[in-house]
Amino acid sequence: MRFDIISVLPDLLTSPFAHSILQRAQKKGIAEIVVHNLRDYATNKQKSVDDYPYGGGSGMVMSIEPFANCIEKLQGERSYDEIIFMSPDGETLNQTIANELSIKGNIIILCGHYKGIDQRIRDIYVTREISIGDYVLSGGELPAAVLVDAVTRLIPGVLNDETSALSDSFQGELLDSPIYTRPAEWRGHKVPDVLLSGHEAKIAEWRHEEALKRTQQRRPDLLK
Amino acid sequence: MRFDIISVLPDLLTSPFAHSILQRAQKKGIAEIVVHNLRDYATNKQKSVDDYPYGGGSGMVMSIEPFANCIEKLQGERSYDEIIFMSPDGETLNQTIANELSIKGNIIILCGHYKGIDQRIRDIYVTREISIGDYVLSGGELPAAVLVDAVTRLIPGVLNDETSALSDSFQGELLDSPIYTRPAEWRGHKVPDVLLSGHEAKIAEWRHEEALKRTQQRRPDLLK
Repeated sequence: MRFDIISVLPDLLTSPFAHSILQRAQKKGIAEIVVHNLRDYATNKQKSVDDYPYGGGSGMVMSIEPFANCIEKLQGERSYDEIIFMSPDGETLNQTIANELSIKGNIIILCGHYKGIDQRIRDIYVTREISIGDYVLSGGELPAAVLVDAVTRLIPGVLNDETSALSDSFQGELLDSPIYTRPAEWRGHKVPDVLLSGHEAKIAEWRHEEALKRTQQRRPDLLK
Repeated sequence: MRFDIISVLPDLLTSPFAHSILQRAQKKGIAEIVVHNLRDYATNKQKSVDDYPYGGGSGMVMSIEPFANCIEKLQGERSYDEIIFMSPDGETLNQTIANELSIKGNIIILCGHYKGIDQRIRDIYVTREISIGDYVLSGGELPAAVLVDAVTRLIPGVLNDETSALSDSFQGELLDSPIYTRPAEWRGHKVPDVLLSGHEAKIAEWRHEEALKRTQQRRPDLLK
């Protein structure tokens, strides 16, 4: 799987893609993540990528041409399954969408900045608009990193058994049950006896009950 | 405002905090963002920060002691308004929560990794658990960066008028209307005439209608 991310702040994305599971996925050759500097695709002499909004108002708007140049260059090199614009207007990312995207081949991700991007980029090129949540961020870079992380860890071969995605929250409709590790007692705070009992069936039952209780308390909406 | 972020992968957070609005907020002295390496607070000879889960199962669990040591050291230096654990189990981040946190003083953010953290850390220290959305990520680092970004840009003085947060999506219950910049026509795709009319009242009316239309189409839930 290949992600091409187009950003006016490509350096912001350096460290998130150089560590942990995203680094491992790239080293294994399972995922390729390429960040493109939008400014390299500006054609005017000032190398500007934004301009004032038509109709007035505060904030700058990202111009069509640099995005169009970058997207069309990439499309000349390979075909893409999706061109995603990270936007608070988009459909809200969830585990189902992440699962869906994890079986795609090549994806372009556009990161907006400033007040937003010229609507015609969205109308002409974008196939899908995704929001990571109902809050405003400084740009599309962190959302792009979040999307790439959520999707990449689902590609077969990226996680080993130890970190298997299958028992994660949201894969099974319930939140995780509480987890504990050593010491069994810390400043008077003890691990629940059942977890020390060695009784597998009782442990499984306790975990299911706790997961259900936590989901009922915190996220009854997940139980429908 | 000060954020202390405790992570086992502090280097992952280098570039997101060194650019754009977060960089500006730190340079202006409005926000201080300090990332602590959890491993520096491990006390055993292997400097380990995780261990096997009680009761069995896949994945490693982050131990109490390194978090406790780091949190208590920080609490010895200043008082904290919140100790936030980034977790898919938490309340879902939205603009209201971001607004609420933007008037706090000092905040500690704990980043989980592996299968999660010992429940006793959550019971003893954590005052608030926040999720950035219903999807699973490799760790709490990107969520921490998202939270810090969403909150910091709301602190007075961080944004200038040009990037004013007040007209962003979610601050006014409606999604943004489409925006356009030059050229007025690009490969036959034109900017809507009204935006070129110079007629302020008509432009405002068009924008409100478009914002309403987009919200009705994409996020009717925001209209209640």
